[in-house]
Amino acid sequence: MATPSAEQINGVLRGFDALYGLELLEYGDGEARGQVTVRDELKQQAGLLHGGVYAAIAESMASLATAFAVAAEGSTAMGLSNSTSFLRPITEGVVHAHATRLHRGRTTWVWDVRFSDDADRTCAVTRMTIAVRPRADGQPPRAR
Amino acid sequence: MATPSAEQINGVLRGFDALYGLELLEYGDGEARGQVTVRDELKQQAGLLHGGVYAAIAESMASLATAFAVAAEGSTAMGLSNSTSFLRPITEGVVHAHATRLHRGRTTWVWDVRFSDDADRTCAVTRMTIAVRPRADGQPPRAR
Amino acid sequence: MATPSAEQINGVLRGFDALYGLELLEYGDGEARGQVTVRDELKQQAGLLHGGVYAAIAESMASLATAFAVAAEGSTAMGLSNSTSFLRPITEGVVHAHATRLHRGRTTWVWDVRFSDDADRTCAVTRMTIAVRPRADGQPPRAR
Amino acid sequence: MATPSAEQINGVLRGFDALYGLELLEYGDGEARGQVTVRDELKQQAGLLHGGVYAAIAESMASLATAFAVAAEGSTAMGLSNSTSFLRPITEGVVHAHATRLHRGRTTWVWDVRFSDDADRTCAVTRMTIAVRPRADGQPPRAR
Repeated sequence: MATPSAEQINGVLRGFDALYGLELLEYGDGEARGQVTVRDELKQQAGLLHGGVYAAIAESMASLATAFAVAAEGSTAMGLSNSTSFLRPITEGVVHAHATRLHRGRTTWVWDVRFSDDADRTCAVTRMTIAVRPRADGQPPRAR
Repeated sequence: MATPSAEQINGVLRGFDALYGLELLEYGDGEARGQVTVRDELKQQAGLLHGGVYAAIAESMASLATAFAVAAEGSTAMGLSNSTSFLRPITEGVVHAHATRLHRGRTTWVWDVRFSDDADRTCAVTRMTIAVRPRADGQPPRAR
Repeated sequence: MATPSAEQINGVLRGFDALYGLELLEYGDGEARGQVTVRDELKQQAGLLHGGVYAAIAESMASLATAFAVAAEGSTAMGLSNSTSFLRPITEGVVHAHATRLHRGRTTWVWDVRFSDDADRTCAVTRMTIAVRPRADGQPPRAR
Repeated sequence: MATPSAEQINGVLRGFDALYGLELLEYGDGEARGQVTVRDELKQQAGLLHGGVYAAIAESMASLATAFAVAAEGSTAMGLSNSTSFLRPITEGVVHAHATRLHRGRTTWVWDVRFSDDADRTCAVTRMTIAVRPRADGQPPRAR
């Protein structure tokens, strides 16, 4: 299977990722980068970027990067836990996400995701644990 | 300040909470209930309810319930950490959220949020830590 | 295999559990209780019960309870993550631990552990995720 | 106040840190290193280094490093949450800990601690959140 490019994946992102506006910039089996443009629809009641947006970005980036990496061996990836700490609010501009893999196990992968604002200040961090399981049908996932 | 009802809060929910469709059913300083109807726009690429939706619901419910409780003393509430474990996927119906306060400290409140499907099976759990801080202007928050 | 009693397990606890003094009171596949008597050797530099002690108790209780439950099916249990929140310091007396299973999956079990002091105030809470894996030799674990 | 050296701190470590054998190698307001020699007394029932030992090391290193950094301003430090993921078991040798500060806020500091074995493989990671509070007596802490 040819691994799709980040651009190709963005073209077919649907569901929640499309709703909040995930833009994948690059990904691989050890690292991924993405971003989301802050808009009023993504804020909580006090006008800050909603904590759920950080959690969603981390979840998608770590899951997608793991899924494409394990697809070749007929496995699938699913979020097991998402632990996000909020350090500094973002109210405008772009939230930048950088995912780094900490661990590549047989049954779990662990990623750290760092979120920064346009001034490159760390605004939130997520630790994602992804479960890797044999795919029921033995087929690699499609980039849908 | 008269504390607004859950219905009144729903009427003015905006931003991300309105985008994914949070519906608050009841809240107090020790417990809150809410729900979100699953729709394609809230799913991840494999067709399951996106992990970020659970995280967003927990964040909002714990933050709102804390904010209204500490408003009387001139304090404000903000998410400090959100730790969600995914136990069983949801693909349709309604996701039900039940938040229970574990701790009411001077500077932090801790909540557990349990998510269940229409068959009342536990599908995810979140531990939310909320920071409570003096409000800069000493004014209680508005239910905006 | 006859499942050993909590008393029998205490009699053979060794290593770290013996060092800090874990006393298991009861356990089953859905709940477990234990305790540790606070002593100077378990405190941190400021004189409070050390955070690592809570984490250790939760780790052992959830792991032991899961291990004995899955032994019959030839599986083994190992801690995957331990997330502890500290709510109120303990300086003397006994720390009481009550573990409740939240989820019993095929590959992961999730437990909540609540720690209380002698006045039954919640002092810390731990969420433990335990990985369940097939045992290499297919033999149930011994209560050593 | 002259900040004590890591060696001076080791000389006066007591309580739990002395019991499990923490050896601080260096520390500062942005980074700290320490180690513990694995021995049977630190293992869980299956013969692996007990998860509570990693949690304890992270707790102490992040708390001590924060405490000495905020002492000058009359503040004190206390663990708020400790979230440890276990990636690879250690059965012998030395466990090496490297703490890096992610965030230095007014009321919370956040640290990442990476644990490695003698072959420098990542074996566990901890995210520690430390609360920084004004010291009741306005006095800096002693290195006791």
